[in-house]
Amino acid sequence: MSPTGGDLEGAATMKNLEVCLTPALLPLFDIEGSVVVVIDIFRATSSICYGIDNGATAIIPVAKVEECAAYREKGLDYLLAAERDGKVVDGFDFGNSPFSYTKQKVEGKTVVLTTTNGTHALHMSIKAKRIVIGSFLNITSLCNWLKQQPDNILLVCAGWKNNFNLEDTLFAGAIAEQLKGLDYKWDDAAIAANDMYQLAKADLNLYLKKSSHGERMKQLGILEDIDFCLNVDITTAIPVLEGERLVRLV
Amino acid sequence: MSPTGGDLEGAATMKNLEVCLTPALLPLFDIEGSVVVVIDIFRATSSICYGIDNGATAIIPVAKVEECAAYREKGLDYLLAAERDGKVVDGFDFGNSPFSYTKQKVEGKTVVLTTTNGTHALHMSIKAKRIVIGSFLNITSLCNWLKQQPDNILLVCAGWKNNFNLEDTLFAGAIAEQLKGLDYKWDDAAIAANDMYQLAKADLNLYLKKSSHGERMKQLGILEDIDFCLNVDITTAIPVLEGERLVRLV
Repeated sequence: MSPTGGDLEGAATMKNLEVCLTPALLPLFDIEGSVVVVIDIFRATSSICYGIDNGATAIIPVAKVEECAAYREKGLDYLLAAERDGKVVDGFDFGNSPFSYTKQKVEGKTVVLTTTNGTHALHMSIKAKRIVIGSFLNITSLCNWLKQQPDNILLVCAGWKNNFNLEDTLFAGAIAEQLKGLDYKWDDAAIAANDMYQLAKADLNLYLKKSSHGERMKQLGILEDIDFCLNVDITTAIPVLEGERLVRLV
Repeated sequence: MSPTGGDLEGAATMKNLEVCLTPALLPLFDIEGSVVVVIDIFRATSSICYGIDNGATAIIPVAKVEECAAYREKGLDYLLAAERDGKVVDGFDFGNSPFSYTKQKVEGKTVVLTTTNGTHALHMSIKAKRIVIGSFLNITSLCNWLKQQPDNILLVCAGWKNNFNLEDTLFAGAIAEQLKGLDYKWDDAAIAANDMYQLAKADLNLYLKKSSHGERMKQLGILEDIDFCLNVDITTAIPVLEGERLVRLV
């Protein structure tokens, strides 16, 4: 039996549920025909979900540190966030730790953000029908919205510098779990991601301790960030890209 | 605990065990510093293992159908094999079904082979310290040899047209299983592949029935090929690339 619960005859009319394991593989997918969910669990998309839920007016993802810095001259309402290799870039207000995206810090503000992987994946997906942002923080809210969409779904894992990582793929598998039983045709990566989720779901944190990024973050001393990013359903906002700005989907 | 059984202090001296999930990701890896295992379970690398074990003098992997055809004029000792999209290309002796690589057909012969994915992965890996060919047919023999190598190991999944597939990743996970407990530092893809193997090992065939390629092969009417390619340890030969020819490692 197919994991989608569908049968072969129905395949022609079924929507696709696909997982792009790293941005380097995006050219292989029909981005234009899909709603894209951008996933960078540690930590960009978790922080974006938290910031938008906490009332940030918008978050502007930019590719380069210099683009981010250029906003400094546009006024005091911009908070500038720049992360490279897991650290805040010198001279910036903050990076992509979720604890920088509290209500107290971001409410009513616009954040300009550049990160190693997350903003890269977002810009690579720019031709999508719609781009939304996913994390464990908003997963059920996001999946409820996805279920109502008539389009193919493409889950884009930001990975680490264009390579595969466990945590983003695991989250793609968690989304697939919520879409199980609906009429989607899964690709092999969706099947694999969901299998990983089956192994991990009892204790996400324990499972991810073995990931290379978990090890990296331990060395950076940001284990609290990991714990926070694995909180399930503590927010309901779905960040969506409108023009160049991520705003709350209404 | 790390799945490698090693500790952090030892990390600097540990060899890497990495899985490249598709040839499109090869530029991210240190190919030059690694022994590469090329993996295209359905069906190229299974057939190559079977053919070399059955006494083929050599198998010459070529990228294009035209290159393969050009050998026609070089003499009758060449068997020409060309597969595209799972089918034998018109005008060729055979494609990549393992049943074309029996002792009766290939002993003492040189096969010139081009396939959709497997030969592509092989050519993309050409700068490796050494390139060997893996499949379930020769897995234990291959792993025993790998364990003796002083170099990093890079498992290259041929995938399907540069995208991820289940069966090649699963086999990479099966190799990782045999190298467990030795001093290798696993990347995230190796961890994920081995997790998939844990879920699948009780019944590989059942697990792979849900793969997109399994579905594709069912439609092509080559289910017997799938069954055959999942035979574990029915051969001992390790095909290795010497110049432009795959020959038996001695």
